[in-house]
Amino acid sequence: MAVEWKNLDTLASYEALQKESTVDLASAMTGESGEKRAKTYQIPMAEGLSYNYAAKCVDDRILAALAKLAEEAQLSEKFAALYNGEVINTGEKRLVLHHLCRGQLGEAVQADGTDKRAFYVEQQERIAAFADRVHNGEITNEKGEKFTEVVQIGIGGSDLGPRAMYLALENWAKTTGNMKMSAKFISNVDPDDAAAVLASCDIAHAIFILVSKSGTTLETLTNESFVKDALTKGGFDPAKHMIAVTSETSPLAKNAGYLDAFYMDDYIGGRYSSSSAVGGAVLSLAFGPKVFADFLCGAHEADVTAKETDPLKNPAMLDALIGVYERNILGYGATAVLPYSQALSRFPAHLQQADMESNGKSVNRFGEPVSYVTGPVIFGEPGTNGQHSFYQLLHQGTDIVPLQFVGFRKSQIGSDVVIENSTSQQKLCANVAAQIVAFACGKQDDNKNKDFKGGRPSSIIVGDQLTPASLGALLAHFENKIMFQGFLWNVNSFDQEGVQLGKLLAKKVLAHDTDGALKVYSDLLNI
Amino acid sequence: MAVEWKNLDTLASYEALQKESTVDLASAMTGESGEKRAKTYQIPMAEGLSYNYAAKCVDDRILAALAKLAEEAQLSEKFAALYNGEVINTGEKRLVLHHLCRGQLGEAVQADGTDKRAFYVEQQERIAAFADRVHNGEITNEKGEKFTEVVQIGIGGSDLGPRAMYLALENWAKTTGNMKMSAKFISNVDPDDAAAVLASCDIAHAIFILVSKSGTTLETLTNESFVKDALTKGGFDPAKHMIAVTSETSPLAKNAGYLDAFYMDDYIGGRYSSSSAVGGAVLSLAFGPKVFADFLCGAHEADVTAKETDPLKNPAMLDALIGVYERNILGYGATAVLPYSQALSRFPAHLQQADMESNGKSVNRFGEPVSYVTGPVIFGEPGTNGQHSFYQLLHQGTDIVPLQFVGFRKSQIGSDVVIENSTSQQKLCANVAAQIVAFACGKQDDNKNKDFKGGRPSSIIVGDQLTPASLGALLAHFENKIMFQGFLWNVNSFDQEGVQLGKLLAKKVLAHDTDGALKVYSDLLNI
Repeated sequence: MAVEWKNLDTLASYEALQKESTVDLASAMTGESGEKRAKTYQIPMAEGLSYNYAAKCVDDRILAALAKLAEEAQLSEKFAALYNGEVINTGEKRLVLHHLCRGQLGEAVQADGTDKRAFYVEQQERIAAFADRVHNGEITNEKGEKFTEVVQIGIGGSDLGPRAMYLALENWAKTTGNMKMSAKFISNVDPDDAAAVLASCDIAHAIFILVSKSGTTLETLTNESFVKDALTKGGFDPAKHMIAVTSETSPLAKNAGYLDAFYMDDYIGGRYSSSSAVGGAVLSLAFGPKVFADFLCGAHEADVTAKETDPLKNPAMLDALIGVYERNILGYGATAVLPYSQALSRFPAHLQQADMESNGKSVNRFGEPVSYVTGPVIFGEPGTNGQHSFYQLLHQGTDIVPLQFVGFRKSQIGSDVVIENSTSQQKLCANVAAQIVAFACGKQDDNKNKDFKGGRPSSIIVGDQLTPASLGALLAHFENKIMFQGFLWNVNSFDQEGVQLGKLLAKKVLAHDTDGALKVYSDLLNI
Repeated sequence: MAVEWKNLDTLASYEALQKESTVDLASAMTGESGEKRAKTYQIPMAEGLSYNYAAKCVDDRILAALAKLAEEAQLSEKFAALYNGEVINTGEKRLVLHHLCRGQLGEAVQADGTDKRAFYVEQQERIAAFADRVHNGEITNEKGEKFTEVVQIGIGGSDLGPRAMYLALENWAKTTGNMKMSAKFISNVDPDDAAAVLASCDIAHAIFILVSKSGTTLETLTNESFVKDALTKGGFDPAKHMIAVTSETSPLAKNAGYLDAFYMDDYIGGRYSSSSAVGGAVLSLAFGPKVFADFLCGAHEADVTAKETDPLKNPAMLDALIGVYERNILGYGATAVLPYSQALSRFPAHLQQADMESNGKSVNRFGEPVSYVTGPVIFGEPGTNGQHSFYQLLHQGTDIVPLQFVGFRKSQIGSDVVIENSTSQQKLCANVAAQIVAFACGKQDDNKNKDFKGGRPSSIIVGDQLTPASLGALLAHFENKIMFQGFLWNVNSFDQEGVQLGKLLAKKVLAHDTDGALKVYSDLLNI
């Protein structure tokens, strides 16, 4: 069937969904009904994860309406068009191929005169070989000493995803003997960022990864200079301490200023680049190529699940559908991501970019204004920390904020302590279980200050342990959820024109080519 | 004049404000009008900071209406009642005295049979003396060796504020020779948090600060056990490595298990405790007592400014008024905090707690439901990082999100690099100046995908450099803004009943006293 790109509010199934009466969540989640929902409203995910949506404002009736919406919006067909190489990024006239970094989902995709799957695999193999040579001491610093640290220089998609993935696996790697090199990250153009990271580094034994697809990102090139100055001042040759991750056509490619260069292309958006060379170089150096390969396997397994046409068997699709229902019909403006895992401390920041930069749009893929709301604000912090912070508003504030919990049965390090007959890991898990029910059901109290209305929806992704494979599956779930939501809203989730105007004006400020308010602010900031 | 606590929607000035037509921000900020606004819509703040609100949706007419609202809502009188010791925290029947930690704003406040200002000063002096003795080697580990690290164990208010303040000053302290001991923080009940921090510590030379007002916070006591186990296994005596910050009536007070204990009381809420012993102990140990004293001076100077009755001379009050106008009349649901300073990386997370936990309420201070929205969702990340992330939605999303920028003319470390004729610090400042105008004015484009509507409000706080004093002023500004907003919404900003239900249910889960959905989730998480 040919794919038709239609606005959400032109779909008959959306109109039908709007007419369905809403679910009384507090009542639905109480007693036997709640027990049955908690047991049955659950979908197996890749790598032993599961998606439980019992505490969402849905029932069989709403789910049936959402399934019709998925069908009419041709979500599966659109995903197939994407992974089979159609020009899905219409604004920039590009294919969207991040799935192909982790496996072949459909037909072979040819572009730029090459098979793209083969291209991505070739880069993975080149990175793996390079990392092995660094780890076994074939590639060393000027004195023949092993490199012990890796520092990524990048910003936005070249920073948030790889950083979140590194932090997610650092303690796992230390515990399982997979830690090859520690990793650090420099991103901000604030000179204190680079200065502080460099001060914490053993630069004699550090290898720096410069990540910029175009090779022209101002922040990143500025920070590269900062690092090169430090290397030179320390008596080191920058060309012996730096590699590049970039596109084949960038000035950083085949450049004698780098030990080596690894390639991505225009079909991998920055915020979807964790499974490309952008994540691959730093994660392979830090943890070894096998760990990165396992991460990709987990992501691919989740991608395969995302091909299911029935949303009740496709957690990313169902998550997307429920999110659109909450945003467009229930009218909720924000979503909180709450991992009960300290290792996922920066995962919400990565999803904040992935989601808000993809779907924070006011025009459809044809450049026409849409007359409905699109992407919500995404924010979050790890639990249980958040419980002692912003959960007050989530429980008793005047706005309802849908919640996405993530939890694991086992910790990564395995050290624990028993207090009051339970381990810390049990306390952590008990808290997330308790929160789901507290948010959904609430608790009446005659003192209205202690009254909880409930009716606050959440879902939870549960896994056994956060490992490279389950992390890959988790990441791919959210990438695919965002993609499906973009299809529903009929926006182009793969460009980001909204970041351009600020760049343009900043250049004017730096060139002192300003007047009016901009000149006043420039003076105020002493530029 | 006697203070009357009234709901926002009962005030005649609020009704009048609702009737004012809204400002066309894009037009107001363009050309001469924009230049004039940028120059004049600015208020000096404490410690050389300034609050510029030119890019907010206000004009002289709206400002006059807001001033009337401030007067009718008796904001100044309510602040005076607070600092003069009335029971402002009605839910818990407590005074609210965090301002008194940093200076005397009004009358002497007697409570618990003592002058409270004298009590807080006494604790500061005791902490200063203790820190000096640690720094000069009078207090040492069992082997007579100096302590070199400090590790704070706390959660929520005992963690986020002190952590954000420490990170804000770490590079400043290293650069100015004020770094006495490095600090780390353990907060999450996730056992991987404590295990990872301990693995990164030199525990032989570490002093641990246990922070819990009640002495009964489960996460904190659990992490204390974790630390004590590690100390004992390492052959160290926990009682020689730990101090407590708690209330005088807690089980941690006057307890032989600690080297010493420093006191706070029930009149300091956790999220307002950075200027009490909770922030004082870790900051004085890390940077020396003089630095903490300077931080308090800056906060006090901001508190004094907050006493101004004219909102055009009182940045915290005006910020609060504009925020309520944006939330209740313009209907914006979230606010982003965007410091252009890597040192403020965790400042947004602290404000997220301070704001959302204070004003995320649905009942007024008498426990009656309110019929208007209260506290918004607060989120943020440092710029320029955010520009390459969620700014897409801020510029072109379907919802408008008001923005709070913060910027400094000078970096903390002072190392910099010139690329394309500008330093990194200049690039950083140029970007924030550019963003204000880009958000306000937008830019028309026939390609609607590249069109920026503008009309997106922001304000900026500008300072010369982030120092202990300016950080104190910045923190106090936001604390006072939140307080004034609580007065406007007529909520009790100083309790947090919304965190209780989750705690209660978590205990049931751990006691295996569950049924229905809660039991299913407990099983799913293997508790």
